[in-house]
Amino acid sequence: MRILMRIAYNGLNFNGWQYQEEGRTVQGEIESVLTSIHKTFTRIHPASRTDKGVHAREQYAHFDTELNIPAEKWAFILNSKMPKDIAITETFQVRDDYHVRYDSKGKTYRYSIYQTSKNPFYNGLKAHIDKTLDIEAMREAAKHFLGTHDFTSFSSAKTVIDYKVRHIYELKIEETNDGLDIVITGSGFLYNMVRIIAAYLFEVGQLKRKPEDTLKLIEAKDRTQIPLTAPPDGLYLERTFLNEQELLEYLEEK
Amino acid sequence: MRILMRIAYNGLNFNGWQYQEEGRTVQGEIESVLTSIHKTFTRIHPASRTDKGVHAREQYAHFDTELNIPAEKWAFILNSKMPKDIAITETFQVRDDYHVRYDSKGKTYRYSIYQTSKNPFYNGLKAHIDKTLDIEAMREAAKHFLGTHDFTSFSSAKTVIDYKVRHIYELKIEETNDGLDIVITGSGFLYNMVRIIAAYLFEVGQLKRKPEDTLKLIEAKDRTQIPLTAPPDGLYLERTFLNEQELLEYLEEK
Repeated sequence: MRILMRIAYNGLNFNGWQYQEEGRTVQGEIESVLTSIHKTFTRIHPASRTDKGVHAREQYAHFDTELNIPAEKWAFILNSKMPKDIAITETFQVRDDYHVRYDSKGKTYRYSIYQTSKNPFYNGLKAHIDKTLDIEAMREAAKHFLGTHDFTSFSSAKTVIDYKVRHIYELKIEETNDGLDIVITGSGFLYNMVRIIAAYLFEVGQLKRKPEDTLKLIEAKDRTQIPLTAPPDGLYLERTFLNEQELLEYLEEK
Repeated sequence: MRILMRIAYNGLNFNGWQYQEEGRTVQGEIESVLTSIHKTFTRIHPASRTDKGVHAREQYAHFDTELNIPAEKWAFILNSKMPKDIAITETFQVRDDYHVRYDSKGKTYRYSIYQTSKNPFYNGLKAHIDKTLDIEAMREAAKHFLGTHDFTSFSSAKTVIDYKVRHIYELKIEETNDGLDIVITGSGFLYNMVRIIAAYLFEVGQLKRKPEDTLKLIEAKDRTQIPLTAPPDGLYLERTFLNEQELLEYLEEK
C-alpha cells in the first residue's frame, strides 16, 4: 500500500530535506521513524527537495508499506514519534504507481522578510532587510515573471535539468505588520529560482534595478546578470497542488 | 567605564546563558565578540542566568572597557557582530560599582504554551499542551502565590541558596489566540521556580490538583510534593526592573 504524507517542518535546524551521512535532515528523521516501525529500511519520496534552512508548510512525501494499518491512522502514529520541528498533518492512500513529484501540478513558495530592528525570535524564520523597499516598483517588476519563460537567468548554474521553461501563475507582494512576503505560484521551480527572484525583487525595491528591465534579463538567459541569491531564512514551501483541480481552485479564489 | 547592555535572545540553539567549555552559550558568544574588539579577555555579568533553551526579551549584562567609545554607540557595534539569535538593543554607562544582579529590583517571566495541533514553527518558542485547561481554576490557584513566601516547595532541590523567601507581585494567566501565557513578576526567582510553578498550574488546569491546596503546598516547604518541571520551551525572561521606580511603574499600570 502506498501512503502519501502531508508534512510541515521548520528548516532551521535541518541540513535540508535530502538524506546525508552527516547532519540532521528531514528525510533522514522521517525515514528513521518509518524504518523503526517497519523493522526494515523504508524510503520516502518527496514532492520536492528543500535546501538547508528552508521550511515547508505543505510538503508531501510517500512510502510503501505492507503493514495492516489504515492509511489515515499513519498521521497520528508518525506525528507522535516525530521531533518537535516536523509535523505529519495528514496521511492517505494513493494508487501504487502514484509519484507525487511527477503527479503534482505546481507549488506556491513564500519568502518572508521583516524590516523592523533585529529580532532574535525570527532567527531562521524571516530574513532581515532593514532598508526601505519600494513595493510598487517590486510589484511592477513582478508582473514580468508571469507566464511561460525560460528561467536560466533566475536559476543556479548548478541546475542539472536542461529544460528550464516554467510557467508562473502568480507573483504577489503582500505587506505584513513588520515587513513583506513574496508569494509565488508556478508549475515548478528550478534550483534556487525562488531565492534568486526574491534577491532580484529586493534589488528592485532598493531602486538598484529598474522594473522595466526584468523581461530583458529573463530573455538574456544569463545567470551572471543576476548574481544574488537571498538566504534560506524566510523561504517556505507553502503549498503543493496535488492535482490540476487544486491549482485551478487556488487561482480562481483570487 | 562600565557599560550595561540590554539583550534579547532566542534560547533554542543555546546551552543556556552561562559559559561552558563545550556548547554554544549566550555569555560565550557575547564575550567572544567583546574579547575580539578589546583584544583582551572581557568578562560580562548578567542580571540572571537562564537555562538551556530559555529565552530573554529583556536580559541585562555589563562589562568594563577602557576603549574611548561613547556608551550608547556600543549597541550598534555589538549588534552588528552578534549572531542572528542575539540582539543588543541598548547600551548605557553605569557607575563603576554598579552590579545589575544586585542593583535590579525584580523580574517578569512569561511562560507561553499553544494548544492547537502540533506546529513545527513553535519549536522551542512555545510549549505544546493539547489538553483543555480550566483557566479559572488556574487563576484561583495563582492568587495563592502572591505575596511573600518561602518557595522551597517550588524550587529545584539543586538550589544552592539557603534563603528561599521571595515576593511575588503578580501572577497572571493571559489567553492568547492559540493557547495561554503565564506571566509572573517577583522580587527574584529560585532555580527552576517559574517552570515548577508553571507545571503546577498546568496540573491545576487539568484538574489534577485543587486550587485551594496551593497555600498548604507552599507552606509544606517540600519539593517532593511538586515533582514536575515544565520544559524550557516557552519560558522568557520578559522584563528586568533596573530600579524600584521601574517596578512600581509596571505594577501601577495595571
